[in-house]
Amino acid sequence: MTDERHGYYFQDLEVGKTDIYAKTVTDADITLFAGISGDTNPVHLDDEFASASRFGTRIAHGMLSASYISTVLGTKLPGPGCIYMGQNLKFMAPVRVGDTVSARVTVRELIEAKNRAVLDTVCTVGDTVVIEGEAMVWVPSRKE
Amino acid sequence: MTDERHGYYFQDLEVGKTDIYAKTVTDADITLFAGISGDTNPVHLDDEFASASRFGTRIAHGMLSASYISTVLGTKLPGPGCIYMGQNLKFMAPVRVGDTVSARVTVRELIEAKNRAVLDTVCTVGDTVVIEGEAMVWVPSRKE
Amino acid sequence: MTDERHGYYFQDLEVGKTDIYAKTVTDADITLFAGISGDTNPVHLDDEFASASRFGTRIAHGMLSASYISTVLGTKLPGPGCIYMGQNLKFMAPVRVGDTVSARVTVRELIEAKNRAVLDTVCTVGDTVVIEGEAMVWVPSRKE
Amino acid sequence: MTDERHGYYFQDLEVGKTDIYAKTVTDADITLFAGISGDTNPVHLDDEFASASRFGTRIAHGMLSASYISTVLGTKLPGPGCIYMGQNLKFMAPVRVGDTVSARVTVRELIEAKNRAVLDTVCTVGDTVVIEGEAMVWVPSRKE
Repeated sequence: MTDERHGYYFQDLEVGKTDIYAKTVTDADITLFAGISGDTNPVHLDDEFASASRFGTRIAHGMLSASYISTVLGTKLPGPGCIYMGQNLKFMAPVRVGDTVSARVTVRELIEAKNRAVLDTVCTVGDTVVIEGEAMVWVPSRKE
Repeated sequence: MTDERHGYYFQDLEVGKTDIYAKTVTDADITLFAGISGDTNPVHLDDEFASASRFGTRIAHGMLSASYISTVLGTKLPGPGCIYMGQNLKFMAPVRVGDTVSARVTVRELIEAKNRAVLDTVCTVGDTVVIEGEAMVWVPSRKE
Repeated sequence: MTDERHGYYFQDLEVGKTDIYAKTVTDADITLFAGISGDTNPVHLDDEFASASRFGTRIAHGMLSASYISTVLGTKLPGPGCIYMGQNLKFMAPVRVGDTVSARVTVRELIEAKNRAVLDTVCTVGDTVVIEGEAMVWVPSRKE
Repeated sequence: MTDERHGYYFQDLEVGKTDIYAKTVTDADITLFAGISGDTNPVHLDDEFASASRFGTRIAHGMLSASYISTVLGTKLPGPGCIYMGQNLKFMAPVRVGDTVSARVTVRELIEAKNRAVLDTVCTVGDTVVIEGEAMVWVPSRKE
């Protein structure tokens, strides 16, 4: 019964397959992320502190933008049924309130012996890369 | 005025320094994380799908537990003023509703020429390691 | 003990009786609604997608505005104790962040044999009707 | 650029096409729905009132379960790009905390002259139908 809710199986994947999730960052997202994570760093919440920082304005939590990668992996490519094994993240540039972050995930390598996929994971705001990284997921085989 | 809100400066850090943040994961956290991230993977939201999965119950988003690492870095060690440059994450075991996740961050290496710190970042539930990884942050120097 | 918390009884209602609930829609409402419903349609969350859509900006979930009708029915007219049997909705115009939606409910018909009330349910933003529809509720009789 | 984020076009649809979204209802969902809708009817929030009601326990807001229909329409079938024109709902049975609600949407009729689709929309908890209804959406044509 749950198969209809399942994402891609390992046999459905191929190198180069890609998908995307995009979200406009709002103050509500930052407040809610602060609440659930506990990350109350003033660079996210306090205009006075942030205006004296290197960034000049409040910025979004890096992990908030990173979470959009998880959204592609868990809902689109490979989607429900895969297991998140690892994620590397390089935070390249700040994200500000009102920015629209696009998280793109692309299959880079398929490791058949272990049903694992390595995926490039890049977040951008316009033409600016804000996060670079890669993910490793385990993807179940289609049942015969 | 903002100095009082600032965390450790690079000169204040030493290898082995450590700090922790812990949070009990609730259904509210998972619903809110789904909203701000967009990650509606049924393994987090749908008991029926989850009970048929490898985990047997709904589990928390991996990035939710990972966000607690960001909380230590951004509020405690090194705290406000540092810049998050990178994070590697290995998801080792699932986190379930009601689990208390402890994120421990420990300075592993200090790179003086670049004001960078490498930190071990480990999340545990009881004795079980749920996330292993390392973070890289830039930490400002104390003004003379 | 609970009678004080009860709304109107069937005998208290008359055709034409009316009440209202109004709410200003914020980005927080939209993020939270996305989380609890799972509806991450980019027309609600992604400025880039929305600006290319027929609407030109992000819009609120139609069911968010519709929920204000339920608020009148469940808290004001007829209020606690009634049972929601049905709702028809026509979505006439979009609701944007910052709009104040007024949900007005008016008794149109009372069906005595079955203790049912049919109510007109209209949501407006200023002079613009954004939702038209009707509700059917069962309303308990006053205990003698 | 936004086409990758788009759902089905009118030409992609056929009668009988179906998709599903399922969500386990938690207390967090009910509290958050009360907050964003304003529907503080005690049958959802007050165990004492609810235990004296026809249902015997607190129940979820009917519009919360109805919102899962919107989730299928807005994210899966037809998905992003469609416009929600109307929804009829019959509330058939209560939903309680812990229930998993499955919202199934099935194309019933395609009205080519107007690019409209009529869809059957049914929510179930196990084998019990909790909401019956139909939706009307406008679906854009694929660009040549």
